[in-house]
Amino acid sequence: MNLITLELTNELPLRWEKIRQALQANATDACLLAGNANIFYAAGRVFGGFVYIPAEGTPIFLVRRPNNLEGEQVAYIRKPEQIPDILRERGMALPKTLLLEGDEIPYSDWLRQAAVFPDATCANGSALLRTVRSVKTAYEVEQMRESAHLHAEVYKQIPSLYRAGMTDLELAIEFERVLRRKGHLGMVRIFGSTMEVIPSSVLAGANAAAVSPYDYSLGGHGQHASLPNGANGTRLAEGMTVMIDSGGNFNGYIADITRTFSIGKLPQQAYDIHQVSLEIQQALAEAGKPGAVCEDLWKLTLQIVEKHGLTDCFMGSEQQAKFVGHGVGIQLNELPVISDRNRAPLQINQIIALEPKFVVAGVGTVGTENTFVVRDFGLEKISMVEEEIIDLNKNS
Amino acid sequence: MNLITLELTNELPLRWEKIRQALQANATDACLLAGNANIFYAAGRVFGGFVYIPAEGTPIFLVRRPNNLEGEQVAYIRKPEQIPDILRERGMALPKTLLLEGDEIPYSDWLRQAAVFPDATCANGSALLRTVRSVKTAYEVEQMRESAHLHAEVYKQIPSLYRAGMTDLELAIEFERVLRRKGHLGMVRIFGSTMEVIPSSVLAGANAAAVSPYDYSLGGHGQHASLPNGANGTRLAEGMTVMIDSGGNFNGYIADITRTFSIGKLPQQAYDIHQVSLEIQQALAEAGKPGAVCEDLWKLTLQIVEKHGLTDCFMGSEQQAKFVGHGVGIQLNELPVISDRNRAPLQINQIIALEPKFVVAGVGTVGTENTFVVRDFGLEKISMVEEEIIDLNKNS
Repeated sequence: MNLITLELTNELPLRWEKIRQALQANATDACLLAGNANIFYAAGRVFGGFVYIPAEGTPIFLVRRPNNLEGEQVAYIRKPEQIPDILRERGMALPKTLLLEGDEIPYSDWLRQAAVFPDATCANGSALLRTVRSVKTAYEVEQMRESAHLHAEVYKQIPSLYRAGMTDLELAIEFERVLRRKGHLGMVRIFGSTMEVIPSSVLAGANAAAVSPYDYSLGGHGQHASLPNGANGTRLAEGMTVMIDSGGNFNGYIADITRTFSIGKLPQQAYDIHQVSLEIQQALAEAGKPGAVCEDLWKLTLQIVEKHGLTDCFMGSEQQAKFVGHGVGIQLNELPVISDRNRAPLQINQIIALEPKFVVAGVGTVGTENTFVVRDFGLEKISMVEEEIIDLNKNS
Repeated sequence: MNLITLELTNELPLRWEKIRQALQANATDACLLAGNANIFYAAGRVFGGFVYIPAEGTPIFLVRRPNNLEGEQVAYIRKPEQIPDILRERGMALPKTLLLEGDEIPYSDWLRQAAVFPDATCANGSALLRTVRSVKTAYEVEQMRESAHLHAEVYKQIPSLYRAGMTDLELAIEFERVLRRKGHLGMVRIFGSTMEVIPSSVLAGANAAAVSPYDYSLGGHGQHASLPNGANGTRLAEGMTVMIDSGGNFNGYIADITRTFSIGKLPQQAYDIHQVSLEIQQALAEAGKPGAVCEDLWKLTLQIVEKHGLTDCFMGSEQQAKFVGHGVGIQLNELPVISDRNRAPLQINQIIALEPKFVVAGVGTVGTENTFVVRDFGLEKISMVEEEIIDLNKNS
């Protein structure tokens, strides 16, 4: 199997060049990628092994398995200790400074990889790689568009999946089935060793306020103490909202979408607060031009929330998340984070999910989440599906 | 929310005592648990934060989030740097030697946690904790039995899910739906930073021989280069086998089951080789008494494989896995591993999945996988569902 498909022949060198430029700007000789997210980014596919990228020259794919990859980049290894010999055979200097994936590889892997290069000073390259990956290539933007499109198509089917008397979990399961039938790969990559992803987060009624061990916008009680996240078996009943949040991974790139549904008619307050979520997204979409500072977007968000007197129920009630958006791509939670004290400016072709959500006591959560591309004119929405609260009782 | 439920009031102290004894045997003052698997083990639920377990005394649950946990063990923190003050407040000595989860936490987390205890010598405690967790308490064995029972019940439904003309992926999706409806939590924990789990691995026909980047028994081409694992869209056709492997997580404890199905009648050779898988499981179940050495069980396996002349197609054909079984529990791949050079003896109440599998050229994979408890008399099978190859054409 030829490692680099025709489709990626021109694409991967663009990514390598972005990494090389970041290495050079960082005065570092090379990086060694070991995690599946970065290997997929640099090689266009996941394999067991490493990608070595020098600040000048061509990357090498150091493959442990599978045993059927071919290409001029490929060198087979049984263990990382063989890497220096492979570099020497190819006439490449050993690095004096080397970045390893310090936020993603275990401590023991770091020790072993660092020991392979005893003459190199090793540093943590995770932030650099996440920064590089946050700005998508044109091809990646297209992959994100495709994933967001397929994901939105599944959201359109939700009203047809609802049956009166269902639980939140039963609806989640039917939704997940349609996701998979549409081509969802069945798994979503996430950054952070204690972050875990369930196939979909469906929050109904009082479960909206359940506090979470995870750094998500909202939590949900879940089904079991071993995985306290998402639906908890709440029977969907008149006057409740049902919020469905999921990561749509159809091609290795993950779109993030949330929509709110109702069972029957809600108190007017719920519709009003839902509009504030749309207002925030609209305001951030206009303000989110290249150069806009993440912290300023967060402050703009809080201004709108405060203007409507909704501070106490924004992004949770019992426990509140302190961000309104985050990058998405190969992982569900990429850079940048739209939060306080993040002075990073938006860059063109970053892709961001914005998820202003509110907990409405006695009703559930309201709000939406959309995936956007940073364009010259601001944020372009790529998750196109009805944003108003759809009454499932009317539409089923 | 009281952190320790009545059910776990007597259970958790048993686990703490096992860890304390291991710490004492290792002449170590304490361990700091940070990963979800070990936090669930020590606290009976997942939270964001840490569990600190001293070699003598009571553990402390250092909770960052959620904000509603109560109990005498609980101390709230915003960051790990607050831990020493909490220990001092409780009259506990700071550790001079400390185990951290070196195989599971990222390098940067290790640095930060180690810096919290500047006077302590930190060492990698992952192997110790995995060894402790490999021997289940009576309660854990019951949890595994329950998970295996529910998982087996779902396997019984597979013939009713098949429709002529289906692809492997379509069957996988219906299987996953029934798993979820039976109570599967939707996620399976696994050890190893590059291991990734899809909801089910369904291998049909030629996809059986596809080589994998992952350290699984078999691989499968998958749907996309970003996740090369499992079903690849093969249309199920007369004369093929369909092997369905999945981790059943119904309560935080994961049973591992594989069954082989056929579409119509197979060549006699396929049935004959399938019997060798059953023969290996039977032989290992009898030999697998406490004290039996893992390597000896692996050699016994190879003897049976060689006796039947099947060395070239055992555990893969193009690429062969070098183990026949592995521990299961909170993670899909626990200790012990039944493989070469593992001189560890089996211990009573370990739980092991045995998965002797063969690739039959032109047909697919055959074999089964069962989950067993190590008992005085050998291995007790807890995954009770038909083991012969069921013809889906006849039974649908």
